[in-house]
Amino acid sequence: MLFPYGTLPFYKPDMMSRPPQESALGVAEAETLIRRTLRPLGTERVALGAAAGRILRETIAAERDQPPYDRVMMDGIALRHGAPARLPILGTQRAGMPALNLTDPSGCIETMTGAMCPAGADTIVPVERITRVDGVATLEPGYTPVPGQFIHRRGSDCRAGEALLSPGTRLSAPALAVLAGNGVAEVAVSRRPRLAILSTGDELVPVDGPVRDWEIRRSNEEAIAASLALHGFGEAERFWAPDDPDATMAVMTRALAERDVVILSGGVSMGDFDYVPQALEQLGVRRIFHRVAQRPGRPLWFGLGPQGQAVFALPGNPVSAMTCFTRYVLPALTAAEGATESRAVPLALAEDAPRLPDLTRFMPARLTHAASGQTLAHLLPVSTSGDFNHLGSTDGIVEIPPGDGAAPAGSAVTFHGW
Amino acid sequence: MLFPYGTLPFYKPDMMSRPPQESALGVAEAETLIRRTLRPLGTERVALGAAAGRILRETIAAERDQPPYDRVMMDGIALRHGAPARLPILGTQRAGMPALNLTDPSGCIETMTGAMCPAGADTIVPVERITRVDGVATLEPGYTPVPGQFIHRRGSDCRAGEALLSPGTRLSAPALAVLAGNGVAEVAVSRRPRLAILSTGDELVPVDGPVRDWEIRRSNEEAIAASLALHGFGEAERFWAPDDPDATMAVMTRALAERDVVILSGGVSMGDFDYVPQALEQLGVRRIFHRVAQRPGRPLWFGLGPQGQAVFALPGNPVSAMTCFTRYVLPALTAAEGATESRAVPLALAEDAPRLPDLTRFMPARLTHAASGQTLAHLLPVSTSGDFNHLGSTDGIVEIPPGDGAAPAGSAVTFHGW
Repeated sequence: MLFPYGTLPFYKPDMMSRPPQESALGVAEAETLIRRTLRPLGTERVALGAAAGRILRETIAAERDQPPYDRVMMDGIALRHGAPARLPILGTQRAGMPALNLTDPSGCIETMTGAMCPAGADTIVPVERITRVDGVATLEPGYTPVPGQFIHRRGSDCRAGEALLSPGTRLSAPALAVLAGNGVAEVAVSRRPRLAILSTGDELVPVDGPVRDWEIRRSNEEAIAASLALHGFGEAERFWAPDDPDATMAVMTRALAERDVVILSGGVSMGDFDYVPQALEQLGVRRIFHRVAQRPGRPLWFGLGPQGQAVFALPGNPVSAMTCFTRYVLPALTAAEGATESRAVPLALAEDAPRLPDLTRFMPARLTHAASGQTLAHLLPVSTSGDFNHLGSTDGIVEIPPGDGAAPAGSAVTFHGW
Repeated sequence: MLFPYGTLPFYKPDMMSRPPQESALGVAEAETLIRRTLRPLGTERVALGAAAGRILRETIAAERDQPPYDRVMMDGIALRHGAPARLPILGTQRAGMPALNLTDPSGCIETMTGAMCPAGADTIVPVERITRVDGVATLEPGYTPVPGQFIHRRGSDCRAGEALLSPGTRLSAPALAVLAGNGVAEVAVSRRPRLAILSTGDELVPVDGPVRDWEIRRSNEEAIAASLALHGFGEAERFWAPDDPDATMAVMTRALAERDVVILSGGVSMGDFDYVPQALEQLGVRRIFHRVAQRPGRPLWFGLGPQGQAVFALPGNPVSAMTCFTRYVLPALTAAEGATESRAVPLALAEDAPRLPDLTRFMPARLTHAASGQTLAHLLPVSTSGDFNHLGSTDGIVEIPPGDGAAPAGSAVTFHGW
């Protein structure tokens, strides 16, 4: 099992003497380069049943006045203001029927919540304020209705043509009510990105097979696929390549075909058997940056493929991979969808957080909610970037800018949810 | 279109004179009754690809020590501490291969990040600290490695058998990494509830057809279905019944068949053409409560079917329906799944919120994040409980307990996300 040194393919002798801190971008610079590179996703029309959680790409205007008619707000009777206290009930106005006509201003019409206000009536008296005997309603003694009461006037919520939903909105449950209520059965949303996830490394074995001491199971691709699914990006196709240049080329060619975004994990730390950078170069993927001044996740690589594919090559260590994916890939996909929202939010540190002098630090965190309305981030110290086994109870990562000493408890940091 | 008064089916004369504030439960009591009534959902085993977002129902223990071997943390060379500064490179230890043997303690083995530490070596020197000429590595002048450095010791993250994920955990992306990394290819999760959504009312017309002045489009079912989908409860079957007793019975019989939860909207305000309570009674659905001391959503009805179905009958007004669904149905489903999380969180009011003396008030709110880490709820005053058109930009509802005057800006209220 000893390889003769000179036979290692693609081995680059100068790798062994690279300076310790060669150029690494800042976190913000890296994010800016990604945003400038990633192409906006196109749009597609989907039926309402498939629209929840998608990003709206058109303006939705009110189909008609809301309410579309003078709407009765209470079960009770409709009368003309000034009518006597004893009123014959001349009919029943239920919801879903055209307006009746109150021809006799000394009578009334029984009304149901949501019904049209009968023509000729201008005031609703709730059922609680009347008694009813032999088809005649009598107002409670001393009760004087206010003219126009309990009528929700046509157009008082919004006027036909008013803009109700703007492009870039994530379609929530109430937004679906707005679409449906305004006759929009099909809606323009951002199409989903076509995604590939590619893991590399001889040491990676499937989840459900045997595992030998020197092998590890393919966990990064499961975590990345889960995050994509949970954030509404649909299903990604998955690939795996062993540490072999031809196999890497073959798999990467397939992974790049007709994709918007390719997410690699492993194979980019350099000094590794890194066929990945070689294959990327041969396939015409241009490097935009390599290495970011952060811990974990320093080896992050980002490039642009010949058909405009964005290629993220994440470090192979699980914590590094999830950190880079959550900090860079998810927000980039959200931006490519044209979403106006921001995924990052400021939260308060529950305890002191150690800073690093020249590196942005990411730490997994679990959130709690103080009674004051403040959300607190409790840090989970992980022993190494390979220690993913304790991340299951965390909610995301906090981003701690470079600095001396500790960021004190209570200070605000940026949180990125898994 | 005038109905002779006496011909109205199921009309209850005493309805017209009910007292204005007959018994209504408090919000907390209503929630407790729901929790006591709803049956816990069973479990099922799903493959990892379908497990994201589901609620775990078993304990996941570490398959083996993590790391499973003494793991090299840097690209560089492995040596035995005390070796000379010039060391012949005797081999290459890559990831995914068994440990080599450093037989000569004056030599070294080239190592890659993630590889096993070669037997006989106890210290890693990073590539940045050496130069390499003709198969011999030389340490940087003056550099003294610390014994054991850059070796991530077997079992230092966790020991085989340690509990990593507990029942009740919602399976996040990192939790999927834990499952995969520990050889769990199939996992026990709560099964999804079997759900039906039933809308009633002659005034309700489909989204994509013509709409007359007195008609409104079926929007509640779209909002409820969207919320269920966005919260991972899968697809609900949808039903609609006109205001007709036989049709209501027929549709409701189908909706109740083999369901865990049936969600109705409309038909429960009383004084309406409410065939719904009649049909529920005939089908053996026992009323647990009707009416909650809240605005909007006072007419909320909750019952238990003969096969243990939970039946929520929400008011038909869109804001009331979404409020009751978000405040009661979603948390009840989450509890039935056995989730340990709470959906409700305390947040701070961005402005004064008007209270009601005897009713809990729910108001739609949009959230912003202050730099302090505080999340602020900005209230959206809606003109009536029919005004759903402006909810598209809101994030959920805040719950304002009964009281005199206003709850002041900055005070904490409970927030329920859509």
